[in-house]
Amino acid sequence: MAKDLFHDCVKAALESDDWQVTHDPYRLIATRRDGKKVGIPIDLGAERIFAAERGEEKIAVEVKSFLRASIVNEFHRAIGQYLMYRVGLRSQENDRLLFLAIPARIAEDIVDLDLLQASFEAYSINILIFDPENCRITQWIKH
Amino acid sequence: MAKDLFHDCVKAALESDDWQVTHDPYRLIATRRDGKKVGIPIDLGAERIFAAERGEEKIAVEVKSFLRASIVNEFHRAIGQYLMYRVGLRSQENDRLLFLAIPARIAEDIVDLDLLQASFEAYSINILIFDPENCRITQWIKH
Repeated sequence: MAKDLFHDCVKAALESDDWQVTHDPYRLIATRRDGKKVGIPIDLGAERIFAAERGEEKIAVEVKSFLRASIVNEFHRAIGQYLMYRVGLRSQENDRLLFLAIPARIAEDIVDLDLLQASFEAYSINILIFDPENCRITQWIKH
Repeated sequence: MAKDLFHDCVKAALESDDWQVTHDPYRLIATRRDGKKVGIPIDLGAERIFAAERGEEKIAVEVKSFLRASIVNEFHRAIGQYLMYRVGLRSQENDRLLFLAIPARIAEDIVDLDLLQASFEAYSINILIFDPENCRITQWIKH
């Protein structure tokens, strides 16, 4: 399944749980020293984030496909992106929770290695686990 | 300058400042659920970390070359790797400080974008800035 299909799969999964996708992509703005505002470029493997709402709940979601060979390397990119986006999100829209969406099979691999699991906990990374076969959310984990 | 040259350049820079490089690579050990210990694989663009000592001071250093096209994407990988390694280092050898070594030109680009700079501060990332032309440390930043 290609990267964009995972993205669409998680959107569909949320919509079937009564979430409304409100922004895709959801844009984070950074500021240069000269005062110029710039969108954080989404490029070269960095996933675009989308935003959704359900009642009072507001979330932003970074979908990781983990399609590359190395799970550890993909994990680095995933948490690095997540943590930087969280910094931006907190100043931009503090009541919107950021989730990292990962396929169920990859979540199993991550839980298997204590250092990966401990990193999720150490940095309070919120996880949304989905089944890419039927596009359903299987677990929400708030750290 | 190729990636390994940056690595060797930072080692030389530290040695000229009376640091002794004690481990290259410095290995972090993770544990699987079945109890098996495994080295964290260094692969596909993940830099190998080395360790150095000077008197009572002990550090581990992750050298980032930022040779790829996208500084933001490289930044994600760099802080993701740094933060995961810090989790491992704290349980393995709590008195060894982890530094992210980055070339001076890249440090300028990072400081220019508030979201990148704010991420360094938010996650207390220690930085070692080096000049790749003459292999000298130009600045230590402890967050």
